[in-house]
Amino acid sequence: MMDIKGIQQKLSTFSKEREWDQFHTPKNLAAALSVEASELLEVFQWLTDDQSRKLDKAQVADVEEEVADIAIYLLRICDVMNINMEAAIKNKLDINAGKYPVETAKGNATKYNKRIK
Amino acid sequence: MMDIKGIQQKLSTFSKEREWDQFHTPKNLAAALSVEASELLEVFQWLTDDQSRKLDKAQVADVEEEVADIAIYLLRICDVMNINMEAAIKNKLDINAGKYPVETAKGNATKYNKRIK
Amino acid sequence: MMDIKGIQQKLSTFSKEREWDQFHTPKNLAAALSVEASELLEVFQWLTDDQSRKLDKAQVADVEEEVADIAIYLLRICDVMNINMEAAIKNKLDINAGKYPVETAKGNATKYNKRIK
Amino acid sequence: MMDIKGIQQKLSTFSKEREWDQFHTPKNLAAALSVEASELLEVFQWLTDDQSRKLDKAQVADVEEEVADIAIYLLRICDVMNINMEAAIKNKLDINAGKYPVETAKGNATKYNKRIK
Repeated sequence: MMDIKGIQQKLSTFSKEREWDQFHTPKNLAAALSVEASELLEVFQWLTDDQSRKLDKAQVADVEEEVADIAIYLLRICDVMNINMEAAIKNKLDINAGKYPVETAKGNATKYNKRIK
Repeated sequence: MMDIKGIQQKLSTFSKEREWDQFHTPKNLAAALSVEASELLEVFQWLTDDQSRKLDKAQVADVEEEVADIAIYLLRICDVMNINMEAAIKNKLDINAGKYPVETAKGNATKYNKRIK
Repeated sequence: MMDIKGIQQKLSTFSKEREWDQFHTPKNLAAALSVEASELLEVFQWLTDDQSRKLDKAQVADVEEEVADIAIYLLRICDVMNINMEAAIKNKLDINAGKYPVETAKGNATKYNKRIK
Repeated sequence: MMDIKGIQQKLSTFSKEREWDQFHTPKNLAAALSVEASELLEVFQWLTDDQSRKLDKAQVADVEEEVADIAIYLLRICDVMNINMEAAIKNKLDINAGKYPVETAKGNATKYNKRIK
């Protein structure tokens, strides 16, 4: 169980103390989040799928740090925009269940790729 | 309190039923996460900072859906790689507290920009 | 007039000499391009629109380097996939002219944002 | 030989006629470019490296359109910021030649990955 409100409260205090709220517009946070997502991708960009499943310790540490950066900006943007992240996730899971019925979505990469567009 | 394990369990079952585990390599999930992060940014890309604080209902619904997609891939990559997301976040909060002391990080956009590099 | 073929030839030789062709799959080059595009965005992420128009010398040098990285991967992916970049651009300019007639596309950010989706 | 100035002139006229210059700040163009780069990546995200080398006609058409979108924003940002793209590319090729000598950069993905950081 993750204490989302608790982390968001810490992030909010951290930003206020540094007078960073002026930079934390939804637009800027969305840009920062996408920059961090690319830093995560950078770890994997030249690896094969197989290598990406067998990272060494230093690479795993990089991934953990980038995952944390993404999570932090995601929780921050939800806080700033008053979005209930858990409700948004549950809602999307329902949408996905309707969009990808087991029978038609099963196992083909090409179809899968078209499906998710 | 968000039940991370519970959501990850649902995502894992969802993927298994559709035989999507073969596509869910860490590398592919990182790519998919960055694509979703860009879809979030797309909502804001031509807006002023001020407009980005005053989205209309349809825009907020778009944001909620993109936020959910990002969260879903983030939870999924943590599950596939056995990363404890909450521990990674807490660890990063400590790093950030050391990196950006209140006195030096306070309030200047240019400095802030250089700091976070 | 930019000598696209000449630059692509240099990039191809550079990659061959280092035995990097194995890494330069279209998928990996697309990932690398998106990572570089985020590095460009990173320069601007906390700046106001106004500040983004008045970069200092160091920031302009950063932008020039990121722009070059993006151009290099773009030319490389076109070479590897046998895509005629200039023809693709001209084709897209025609599409855009049909999609955004002057009368309806004029000057409103919200409309513009919806238009480009 | 690609007529960069000619294309930039067309893009500039296109933007002016639609009163879009107000939206084309360097920051917004960088965001738009990164969104388009992700749309290119989206075509490949669930494919294996091998499949990414053998796209079907519809996928190639998608790639051509996304490549054009990226090129258009890249040329536009260079125009708006008075950056000479060809000079920036040549400068970066020299930097890369110094950074990755053939002897040390040859053929290993892990090393390659670390090199490019």
